[in-house]
Amino acid sequence: MTTRSTATAPRRPAAYQPVQKSSSGIFVVLEGISGSGKSTLAAHLAERLGCRTFHTVPAPVSDLQPYINSHARALPQLAFYLAGALHAADLARQALHTGHAVADRYVNSVIANHAAVHGLDNATVAATIAPFTGYLTQPDITVYLHTDLDELTARMTAKPDQSAADRDLIADRALLRRLADHYDQIAAADPTAYHLHTDSRTPANLADHRTSLMHAMTHATDQAVNESQAPLTRA
Amino acid sequence: MTTRSTATAPRRPAAYQPVQKSSSGIFVVLEGISGSGKSTLAAHLAERLGCRTFHTVPAPVSDLQPYINSHARALPQLAFYLAGALHAADLARQALHTGHAVADRYVNSVIANHAAVHGLDNATVAATIAPFTGYLTQPDITVYLHTDLDELTARMTAKPDQSAADRDLIADRALLRRLADHYDQIAAADPTAYHLHTDSRTPANLADHRTSLMHAMTHATDQAVNESQAPLTRA
Repeated sequence: MTTRSTATAPRRPAAYQPVQKSSSGIFVVLEGISGSGKSTLAAHLAERLGCRTFHTVPAPVSDLQPYINSHARALPQLAFYLAGALHAADLARQALHTGHAVADRYVNSVIANHAAVHGLDNATVAATIAPFTGYLTQPDITVYLHTDLDELTARMTAKPDQSAADRDLIADRALLRRLADHYDQIAAADPTAYHLHTDSRTPANLADHRTSLMHAMTHATDQAVNESQAPLTRA
Repeated sequence: MTTRSTATAPRRPAAYQPVQKSSSGIFVVLEGISGSGKSTLAAHLAERLGCRTFHTVPAPVSDLQPYINSHARALPQLAFYLAGALHAADLARQALHTGHAVADRYVNSVIANHAAVHGLDNATVAATIAPFTGYLTQPDITVYLHTDLDELTARMTAKPDQSAADRDLIADRALLRRLADHYDQIAAADPTAYHLHTDSRTPANLADHRTSLMHAMTHATDQAVNESQAPLTRA
Protein backbone atom coordinates (compact mmCIF):
# COMPACT_ATOMS: atom_id res chain seq x y z
CA MET A 1 0.00 0.00 0.00
CA THR A 2 1.30 3.43 -0.90
CA THR A 3 0.11 6.87 0.02
CA ARG A 4 -0.14 9.29 -2.87
CA SER A 5 2.00 12.31 -2.26
CA THR A 6 0.59 15.59 -3.47
CA ALA A 7 2.60 18.80 -3.40
CA THR A 8 0.43 21.46 -1.82
CA ALA A 9 1.19 25.09 -1.10
CA PRO A 10 2.32 25.67 2.46
CA ARG A 11 0.01 27.11 5.14
CA ARG A 12 -3.16 25.84 3.52
CA PRO A 13 -5.69 24.79 6.17
CA ALA A 14 -6.86 21.17 6.49
CA ALA A 15 -10.13 21.98 4.67
CA TYR A 16 -8.09 22.79 1.54
CA GLN A 17 -5.93 19.67 1.71
CA PRO A 18 -6.88 16.63 -0.32
CA VAL A 19 -8.08 13.61 1.65
CA GLN A 20 -5.00 11.39 1.75
CA LYS A 21 -6.07 7.79 1.91
CA SER A 22 -3.82 4.84 1.22
CA SER A 23 -4.19 3.52 -2.30
CA SER A 24 -2.69 0.76 -4.37
CA GLY A 25 -4.90 1.32 -7.39
CA ILE A 26 -3.62 2.97 -10.55
CA PHE A 27 -4.95 6.21 -11.96
CA VAL A 28 -5.21 6.19 -15.76
CA VAL A 29 -5.87 9.45 -17.58
CA LEU A 30 -6.84 9.69 -21.25
CA GLU A 31 -6.06 12.97 -23.01
CA GLY A 32 -6.77 13.96 -26.59
CA ILE A 33 -8.93 15.95 -28.93
CA SER A 34 -12.65 15.25 -29.29
CA GLY A 35 -13.08 12.30 -31.63
CA SER A 36 -9.75 10.69 -30.75
CA GLY A 37 -11.48 7.73 -29.11
CA LYS A 38 -11.09 8.61 -25.43
CA SER A 39 -14.56 7.64 -24.25
CA THR A 40 -14.53 4.27 -26.02
CA LEU A 41 -11.13 3.49 -24.56
CA ALA A 42 -12.18 4.79 -21.12
CA ALA A 43 -15.23 2.51 -21.07
CA HIS A 44 -13.10 -0.45 -22.15
CA LEU A 45 -10.42 0.19 -19.53
CA ALA A 46 -12.96 0.78 -16.77
CA GLU A 47 -14.54 -2.57 -17.57
CA ARG A 48 -11.16 -4.27 -17.73
CA LEU A 49 -10.02 -2.73 -14.42
CA GLY A 50 -13.41 -3.13 -12.73
CA CYS A 51 -13.53 0.53 -11.81
CA ARG A 52 -15.42 3.72 -12.44
CA THR A 53 -14.65 6.23 -15.13
CA PHE A 54 -15.41 9.95 -15.02
CA HIS A 55 -14.93 12.99 -17.21
CA THR A 56 -13.11 16.22 -16.54
CA VAL A 57 -15.12 18.27 -15.94
CA PRO A 58 -17.35 15.68 -14.23
CA ALA A 59 -21.13 15.50 -14.64
CA PRO A 60 -23.25 17.39 -13.68
CA VAL A 61 -20.73 20.27 -13.59
CA SER A 62 -20.30 19.61 -17.33
CA ASP A 63 -23.91 20.74 -17.90
CA LEU A 64 -22.66 24.32 -17.60
CA GLN A 65 -19.88 24.04 -20.19
CA PRO A 66 -21.97 25.36 -23.13
CA TYR A 67 -22.99 28.45 -21.12
CA ILE A 68 -19.49 29.05 -19.73
CA ASN A 69 -17.82 28.60 -23.14
CA SER A 70 -20.16 31.04 -24.86
CA HIS A 71 -20.88 33.62 -22.11
CA ALA A 72 -17.91 33.78 -19.73
CA ARG A 73 -14.64 35.55 -20.46
CA ALA A 74 -11.30 33.75 -20.24
CA LEU A 75 -10.51 34.09 -16.52
CA PRO A 76 -13.97 33.08 -15.18
CA GLN A 77 -13.86 30.20 -17.71
CA LEU A 78 -10.51 29.06 -16.38
CA ALA A 79 -11.74 29.20 -12.76
CA PHE A 80 -14.77 27.11 -13.76
CA TYR A 81 -12.64 24.43 -15.45
CA LEU A 82 -10.23 24.52 -12.52
CA ALA A 83 -13.16 23.79 -10.16
CA GLY A 84 -14.06 20.85 -12.41
CA ALA A 85 -10.51 19.48 -12.40
CA LEU A 86 -10.21 19.82 -8.61
CA HIS A 87 -13.50 17.97 -8.18
CA ALA A 88 -12.32 15.30 -10.64
CA ALA A 89 -9.21 14.86 -8.48
CA ASP A 90 -11.46 14.09 -5.51
CA LEU A 91 -13.45 11.59 -7.59
CA ALA A 92 -10.16 9.92 -8.55
CA ARG A 93 -9.03 9.74 -4.91
CA GLN A 94 -12.41 8.30 -3.94
CA ALA A 95 -12.13 5.59 -6.61
CA LEU A 96 -8.46 4.88 -5.77
CA HIS A 97 -9.36 4.21 -2.16
CA THR A 98 -11.06 0.98 -3.21
CA GLY A 99 -9.59 0.25 -6.65
CA HIS A 100 -8.42 1.83 -9.89
CA ALA A 101 -9.61 5.03 -11.57
CA VAL A 102 -9.94 6.04 -15.22
CA ALA A 103 -10.40 9.69 -16.21
CA ASP A 104 -11.65 10.78 -19.64
CA ARG A 105 -9.65 14.04 -19.77
CA TYR A 106 -7.96 15.72 -16.79
CA VAL A 107 -6.13 18.96 -16.08
CA ASN A 108 -3.97 18.78 -19.23
CA SER A 109 -7.07 18.84 -21.41
CA VAL A 110 -8.19 21.92 -19.49
CA ILE A 111 -4.84 23.60 -20.16
CA ALA A 112 -4.55 22.57 -23.83
CA ASN A 113 -8.12 23.54 -24.74
CA HIS A 114 -8.13 26.80 -22.82
CA ALA A 115 -4.75 27.82 -24.25
CA ALA A 116 -5.77 26.96 -27.83
CA VAL A 117 -9.14 28.72 -27.65
CA HIS A 118 -7.77 31.89 -26.04
CA GLY A 119 -4.47 32.06 -27.93
CA LEU A 120 -2.34 31.59 -24.81
CA ASP A 121 0.77 29.56 -23.99
CA ASN A 122 0.31 26.37 -21.98
CA ALA A 123 2.81 27.82 -19.50
CA THR A 124 0.70 30.96 -18.95
CA VAL A 125 -2.42 28.92 -18.24
CA ALA A 126 -0.54 26.47 -15.99
CA ALA A 127 1.04 29.36 -14.05
CA THR A 128 -2.36 30.99 -13.53
CA ILE A 129 -3.86 27.88 -11.91
CA ALA A 130 -0.61 26.84 -10.18
CA PRO A 131 -1.75 28.03 -6.71
CA PHE A 132 -4.42 25.30 -6.84
CA THR A 133 -2.90 22.43 -8.80
CA GLY A 134 -1.03 20.93 -5.86
CA TYR A 135 -4.47 19.59 -4.90
CA LEU A 136 -4.64 17.41 -8.02
CA THR A 137 -3.80 13.73 -7.57
CA GLN A 138 -1.14 12.61 -10.04
CA PRO A 139 -1.93 10.03 -12.75
CA ASP A 140 0.17 6.85 -12.94
CA ILE A 141 -0.20 6.79 -16.69
CA THR A 142 -1.48 9.48 -19.04
CA VAL A 143 -2.47 8.21 -22.47
CA TYR A 144 -2.22 10.82 -25.21
CA LEU A 145 -4.30 9.85 -28.23
CA HIS A 146 -2.79 11.27 -31.43
CA THR A 147 -5.06 11.24 -34.43
CA ASP A 148 -4.66 12.66 -37.92
CA LEU A 149 -6.52 15.97 -38.14
CA ASP A 150 -8.58 14.95 -41.19
CA GLU A 151 -9.71 11.82 -39.42
CA LEU A 152 -10.57 13.80 -36.26
CA THR A 153 -12.64 16.21 -38.33
CA ALA A 154 -14.45 13.30 -40.00
CA ARG A 155 -15.18 11.66 -36.64
CA MET A 156 -16.39 14.90 -35.04
CA THR A 157 -18.58 15.57 -38.09
CA ALA A 158 -20.18 12.11 -37.66
CA LYS A 159 -20.73 12.51 -33.89
CA PRO A 160 -24.37 12.19 -32.82
CA ASP A 161 -23.64 14.28 -29.68
CA GLN A 162 -21.61 16.97 -31.48
CA SER A 163 -20.92 19.94 -29.21
CA ALA A 164 -20.43 23.62 -30.04
CA ALA A 165 -16.73 23.06 -29.29
CA ASP A 166 -16.68 20.21 -31.86
CA ARG A 167 -18.29 22.50 -34.44
CA ASP A 168 -15.63 25.15 -33.78
CA LEU A 169 -12.88 22.56 -34.34
CA ILE A 170 -14.53 21.26 -37.53
CA ALA A 171 -14.85 24.78 -38.93
CA ASP A 172 -11.47 26.14 -37.90
CA ARG A 173 -8.50 24.03 -39.00
CA ALA A 174 -6.01 26.50 -37.51
CA LEU A 175 -7.67 26.08 -34.09
CA LEU A 176 -7.61 22.28 -34.46
CA ARG A 177 -3.91 22.34 -35.37
CA ARG A 178 -3.13 24.70 -32.49
CA LEU A 179 -4.98 22.41 -30.09
CA ALA A 180 -3.03 19.37 -31.32
CA ASP A 181 0.21 21.33 -30.84
CA HIS A 182 -0.79 22.27 -27.28
CA TYR A 183 -1.41 18.61 -26.44
CA ASP A 184 1.91 17.60 -28.03
CA GLN A 185 3.83 20.19 -26.00
CA ILE A 186 2.22 19.01 -22.77
CA ALA A 187 2.76 15.34 -23.57
CA ALA A 188 6.43 15.95 -24.39
CA ALA A 189 7.04 17.17 -20.83
CA ASP A 190 4.83 14.60 -19.07
CA PRO A 191 6.78 11.78 -17.34
CA THR A 192 3.58 9.68 -17.19
CA ALA A 193 2.90 10.01 -20.95
CA TYR A 194 2.01 6.96 -23.03
CA HIS A 195 1.46 7.71 -26.71
CA LEU A 196 -1.13 6.10 -28.95
CA HIS A 197 -0.64 7.21 -32.54
CA THR A 198 -3.37 6.59 -35.06
CA ASP A 199 -2.71 7.11 -38.72
CA SER A 200 -5.74 5.36 -40.13
CA ARG A 201 -7.36 7.73 -42.56
CA THR A 202 -10.39 5.85 -43.81
CA PRO A 203 -13.49 5.06 -41.80
CA ALA A 204 -13.27 1.47 -43.14
CA ASN A 205 -10.30 0.42 -41.04
CA LEU A 206 -11.26 2.45 -37.98
CA ALA A 207 -12.90 -0.45 -36.16
CA ASP A 208 -9.80 -2.65 -36.61
CA HIS A 209 -7.64 0.25 -35.66
CA ARG A 210 -9.54 0.85 -32.44
CA THR A 211 -9.21 -2.81 -31.55
CA SER A 212 -5.43 -2.63 -31.85
CA LEU A 213 -5.41 0.57 -29.77
CA MET A 214 -7.38 -1.21 -27.10
CA HIS A 215 -4.87 -4.05 -27.08
CA ALA A 216 -1.93 -1.67 -26.83
CA MET A 217 -3.55 0.35 -24.08
CA THR A 218 -4.78 -2.67 -22.16
CA HIS A 219 -1.28 -4.10 -22.30
CA ALA A 220 0.24 -0.84 -21.03
CA THR A 221 -2.30 -0.57 -18.25
CA ASP A 222 -1.90 -4.20 -17.21
CA GLN A 223 1.83 -3.58 -17.04
CA ALA A 224 1.33 -0.50 -14.83
CA VAL A 225 -1.00 -2.51 -12.60
CA ASN A 226 1.53 -5.34 -12.34
CA GLU A 227 4.31 -2.91 -11.48
CA SER A 228 2.15 -1.44 -8.72
CA GLN A 229 1.45 -4.99 -7.49
CA ALA A 230 -2.25 -4.18 -7.33
CA PRO A 231 -4.84 -6.75 -8.40
CA LEU A 232 -6.18 -6.21 -11.93
CA THR A 233 -9.77 -6.03 -10.71
CA ARG A 234 -11.24 -5.31 -7.33
CA ALA A 235 -14.23 -7.07 -5.83
CA MET B 1 -16.48 59.96 -17.27
CA THR B 2 -14.15 57.90 -15.15
CA THR B 3 -12.36 54.67 -15.85
CA ARG B 4 -12.61 52.06 -13.12
CA SER B 5 -9.20 51.10 -11.92
CA THR B 6 -8.74 47.44 -11.08
CA ALA B 7 -5.55 46.16 -9.48
CA THR B 8 -4.47 43.10 -11.42
CA ALA B 9 -1.47 40.89 -10.93
CA PRO B 10 1.41 41.85 -13.22
CA ARG B 11 2.33 39.81 -16.28
CA ARG B 12 -1.20 38.54 -16.88
CA PRO B 13 -1.96 38.34 -20.62
CA ALA B 14 -4.66 40.52 -22.19
CA ALA B 15 -7.11 37.60 -22.24
CA TYR B 16 -7.04 37.56 -18.42
CA GLN B 17 -7.50 41.32 -18.03
CA PRO B 18 -10.96 42.74 -17.43
CA VAL B 19 -12.44 44.76 -20.28
CA GLN B 20 -11.86 48.35 -19.15
CA LYS B 21 -14.56 50.54 -20.54
CA SER B 22 -15.30 54.05 -19.36
CA SER B 23 -18.16 54.21 -16.91
CA SER B 24 -19.95 56.85 -14.92
CA GLY B 25 -22.56 54.49 -13.45
CA ILE B 26 -22.47 53.36 -9.84
CA PHE B 27 -22.09 49.75 -8.76
CA VAL B 28 -24.26 48.88 -5.75
CA VAL B 29 -23.67 45.57 -3.96
CA LEU B 30 -26.03 44.09 -1.38
CA GLU B 31 -24.54 41.64 1.11
CA GLY B 32 -26.25 39.75 3.88
CA ILE B 33 -27.62 36.44 5.07
CA SER B 34 -30.49 34.70 3.28
CA GLY B 35 -33.74 36.31 4.44
CA SER B 36 -32.20 39.71 5.15
CA GLY B 37 -34.16 41.32 2.31
CA LYS B 38 -31.45 41.58 -0.37
CA SER B 39 -33.53 40.51 -3.36
CA THR B 40 -36.46 42.82 -2.50
CA LEU B 41 -34.08 45.74 -2.07
CA ALA B 42 -32.15 44.77 -5.23
CA ALA B 43 -35.32 44.77 -7.32
CA HIS B 44 -36.36 48.12 -5.86
CA LEU B 45 -32.96 49.71 -6.50
CA ALA B 46 -32.71 48.29 -10.01
CA GLU B 47 -36.10 49.81 -10.84
CA ARG B 48 -35.12 53.13 -9.23
CA LEU B 49 -31.77 53.23 -11.09
CA GLY B 50 -33.19 51.88 -14.34
CA CYS B 51 -30.59 49.13 -14.48
CA ARG B 52 -30.19 45.40 -14.34
CA THR B 53 -29.63 43.34 -11.22
CA PHE B 54 -27.84 40.00 -11.00
CA HIS B 55 -26.87 37.47 -8.36
CA THR B 56 -23.48 36.18 -7.34
CA VAL B 57 -23.18 33.51 -8.48
CA PRO B 58 -25.18 34.53 -11.57
CA ALA B 59 -27.79 32.34 -13.25
CA PRO B 60 -27.47 29.80 -14.80
CA VAL B 61 -24.18 29.06 -12.99
CA SER B 62 -26.27 29.09 -9.80
CA ASP B 63 -28.10 25.96 -11.00
CA LEU B 64 -25.05 23.98 -9.90
CA GLN B 65 -24.88 25.34 -6.34
CA PRO B 66 -26.91 22.50 -4.75
CA TYR B 67 -24.64 19.87 -6.35
CA ILE B 68 -21.42 21.76 -5.55
CA ASN B 69 -22.44 22.44 -1.92
CA SER B 70 -23.32 18.82 -1.26
CA HIS B 71 -20.80 16.91 -3.42
CA ALA B 72 -17.64 19.01 -3.80
CA ARG B 73 -14.99 19.44 -1.12
CA ALA B 74 -13.90 22.89 0.09
CA LEU B 75 -11.27 23.80 -2.51
CA PRO B 76 -13.27 22.79 -5.62
CA GLN B 77 -16.24 24.60 -4.05
CA LEU B 78 -14.19 27.76 -3.62
CA ALA B 79 -12.95 27.61 -7.23
CA PHE B 80 -16.56 27.24 -8.40
CA TYR B 81 -17.75 30.28 -6.41
CA LEU B 82 -14.69 32.20 -7.55
CA ALA B 83 -15.67 31.49 -11.18
CA GLY B 84 -19.16 32.80 -10.36
CA ALA B 85 -17.80 36.00 -8.77
CA LEU B 86 -15.43 36.65 -11.69
CA HIS B 87 -18.30 36.20 -14.14
CA ALA B 88 -20.47 38.53 -11.98
CA ALA B 89 -17.71 41.15 -12.23
CA ASP B 90 -17.97 40.98 -16.02
CA LEU B 91 -21.77 41.34 -15.83
CA ALA B 92 -21.27 44.42 -13.61
CA ARG B 93 -18.78 45.94 -16.07
CA GLN B 94 -21.19 45.24 -18.93
CA ALA B 95 -24.02 47.01 -17.09
CA LEU B 96 -21.77 49.90 -15.99
CA HIS B 97 -20.84 50.59 -19.60
CA THR B 98 -24.34 51.91 -20.24
CA GLY B 99 -25.68 52.70 -16.75
CA HIS B 100 -25.73 51.53 -13.14
CA ALA B 101 -25.42 47.99 -11.75
CA VAL B 102 -26.94 46.28 -8.71
CA ALA B 103 -25.56 42.95 -7.44
CA ASP B 104 -27.47 40.70 -5.05
CA ARG B 105 -24.38 39.32 -3.24
CA TYR B 106 -20.79 39.60 -4.51
CA VAL B 107 -17.38 38.30 -3.52
CA ASN B 108 -17.82 39.11 0.20
CA SER B 109 -20.82 36.78 0.38
CA VAL B 110 -18.65 34.09 -1.21
CA ILE B 111 -15.97 34.63 1.44
CA ALA B 112 -18.34 34.90 4.44
CA ASN B 113 -20.41 31.84 3.50
CA HIS B 114 -17.47 29.67 2.53
CA ALA B 115 -15.55 30.60 5.69
CA ALA B 116 -18.56 29.96 7.95
CA VAL B 117 -19.46 26.61 6.37
CA HIS B 118 -15.90 25.28 6.37
CA GLY B 119 -14.79 26.76 9.69
CA LEU B 120 -12.14 29.00 8.15
CA ASP B 121 -11.03 32.59 8.72
CA ASN B 122 -12.13 35.19 6.18
CA ALA B 123 -8.47 36.04 5.72
CA THR B 124 -7.59 32.45 4.76
CA VAL B 125 -10.33 32.32 2.14
CA ALA B 126 -9.47 35.78 0.81
CA ALA B 127 -5.77 34.85 0.58
CA THR B 128 -6.59 31.66 -1.33
CA ILE B 129 -8.51 33.50 -4.05
CA ALA B 130 -6.24 36.58 -3.97
CA PRO B 131 -4.39 35.68 -7.22
CA PHE B 132 -7.72 36.18 -9.04
CA THR B 133 -9.52 38.94 -7.18
CA GLY B 134 -7.73 41.81 -8.93
CA TYR B 135 -10.12 40.98 -11.79
CA LEU B 136 -13.18 41.97 -9.72
CA THR B 137 -14.60 45.42 -10.36
CA GLN B 138 -14.97 47.40 -7.13
CA PRO B 139 -18.40 48.41 -5.80
CA ASP B 140 -19.10 52.12 -5.15
CA ILE B 141 -21.36 51.20 -2.25
CA THR B 142 -21.75 47.88 -0.44
CA VAL B 143 -24.91 47.61 1.63
CA TYR B 144 -24.63 45.17 4.53
CA LEU B 145 -28.06 44.10 5.77
CA HIS B 146 -27.98 43.26 9.49
CA THR B 147 -30.95 41.36 10.77
CA ASP B 148 -31.70 39.81 14.15
CA LEU B 149 -30.98 36.08 13.99
CA ASP B 150 -34.43 35.04 15.25
CA GLU B 151 -36.04 37.14 12.57
CA LEU B 152 -33.73 35.74 9.89
CA THR B 153 -34.64 32.21 10.98
CA ALA B 154 -38.36 33.07 10.84
CA ARG B 155 -38.00 34.57 7.35
CA MET B 156 -35.97 31.64 6.03
CA THR B 157 -38.52 29.22 7.53
CA ALA B 158 -41.31 31.03 5.68
CA LYS B 159 -39.45 31.14 2.34
CA PRO B 160 -41.29 29.44 -0.53
CA ASP B 161 -37.96 28.86 -2.34
CA GLN B 162 -36.07 27.60 0.73
CA SER B 163 -32.67 26.15 -0.22
CA ALA B 164 -30.63 23.42 1.45
CA ALA B 165 -28.32 26.20 2.65
CA ASP B 166 -31.32 27.95 4.26
CA ARG B 167 -32.30 24.69 6.00
CA ASP B 168 -28.75 24.35 7.35
CA LEU B 169 -28.92 27.89 8.76
CA ILE B 170 -32.37 27.31 10.29
CA ALA B 171 -31.21 24.09 11.97
CA ASP B 172 -27.79 25.25 13.14
CA ARG B 173 -27.82 28.45 15.20
CA ALA B 174 -24.04 28.30 15.74
CA LEU B 175 -23.52 28.30 11.97
CA LEU B 176 -25.94 31.22 11.57
CA ARG B 177 -24.14 33.21 14.30
CA ARG B 178 -20.74 32.38 12.75
CA LEU B 179 -21.98 33.56 9.36
CA ALA B 180 -23.26 36.85 10.82
CA ASP B 181 -19.85 37.33 12.50
CA HIS B 182 -18.03 36.71 9.21
CA TYR B 183 -20.16 39.35 7.48
CA ASP B 184 -19.57 41.81 10.36
CA GLN B 185 -15.80 41.33 10.17
CA ILE B 186 -15.77 41.91 6.41
CA ALA B 187 -18.05 44.94 6.66
CA ALA B 188 -15.87 46.50 9.39
CA ALA B 189 -12.92 46.60 6.99
CA ASP B 190 -14.87 47.63 3.87
CA PRO B 191 -14.45 51.32 2.93
CA THR B 192 -17.56 51.09 0.71
CA ALA B 193 -19.75 49.70 3.54
CA TYR B 194 -23.21 51.13 4.20
CA HIS B 195 -25.04 49.50 7.12
CA LEU B 196 -28.74 48.78 7.28
CA HIS B 197 -29.67 47.47 10.73
CA THR B 198 -33.01 45.82 11.24
CA ASP B 199 -34.22 45.14 14.75
CA SER B 200 -37.82 44.41 14.01
CA ARG B 201 -38.70 41.16 15.68
CA THR B 202 -42.32 40.64 14.76
CA PRO B 203 -43.64 39.83 11.29
CA ALA B 204 -46.31 42.52 11.84
CA ASN B 205 -44.00 45.52 11.49
CA LEU B 206 -41.83 43.95 8.83
CA ALA B 207 -43.63 45.63 5.92
CA ASP B 208 -43.22 49.08 7.49
CA HIS B 209 -39.67 48.24 8.37
CA ARG B 210 -38.84 47.26 4.80
CA THR B 211 -40.33 50.51 3.55
CA SER B 212 -38.06 52.56 5.81
CA LEU B 213 -35.07 50.44 4.72
CA MET B 214 -35.94 51.20 1.12
CA HIS B 215 -36.09 54.90 1.86
CA ALA B 216 -32.75 54.85 3.66
CA MET B 217 -31.09 52.84 0.91
CA THR B 218 -32.65 54.83 -1.91
CA HIS B 219 -31.43 58.01 -0.23
CA ALA B 220 -27.89 56.62 0.13
CA THR B 221 -27.84 55.44 -3.47
CA ASP B 222 -29.20 58.72 -4.81
CA GLN B 223 -26.47 60.49 -2.88
CA ALA B 224 -23.80 58.23 -4.38
CA VAL B 225 -25.22 58.83 -7.84
CA ASN B 226 -25.25 62.60 -7.27
CA GLU B 227 -21.66 62.54 -6.03
CA SER B 228 -20.64 60.63 -9.16
CA GLN B 229 -22.53 63.23 -11.24
CA ALA B 230 -24.22 60.44 -13.17
CA PRO B 231 -27.88 60.71 -14.15
CA LEU B 232 -30.20 58.75 -11.85
CA THR B 233 -31.65 56.75 -14.71
CA ARG B 234 -30.31 56.02 -18.17
CA ALA B 235 -32.36 56.00 -21.33
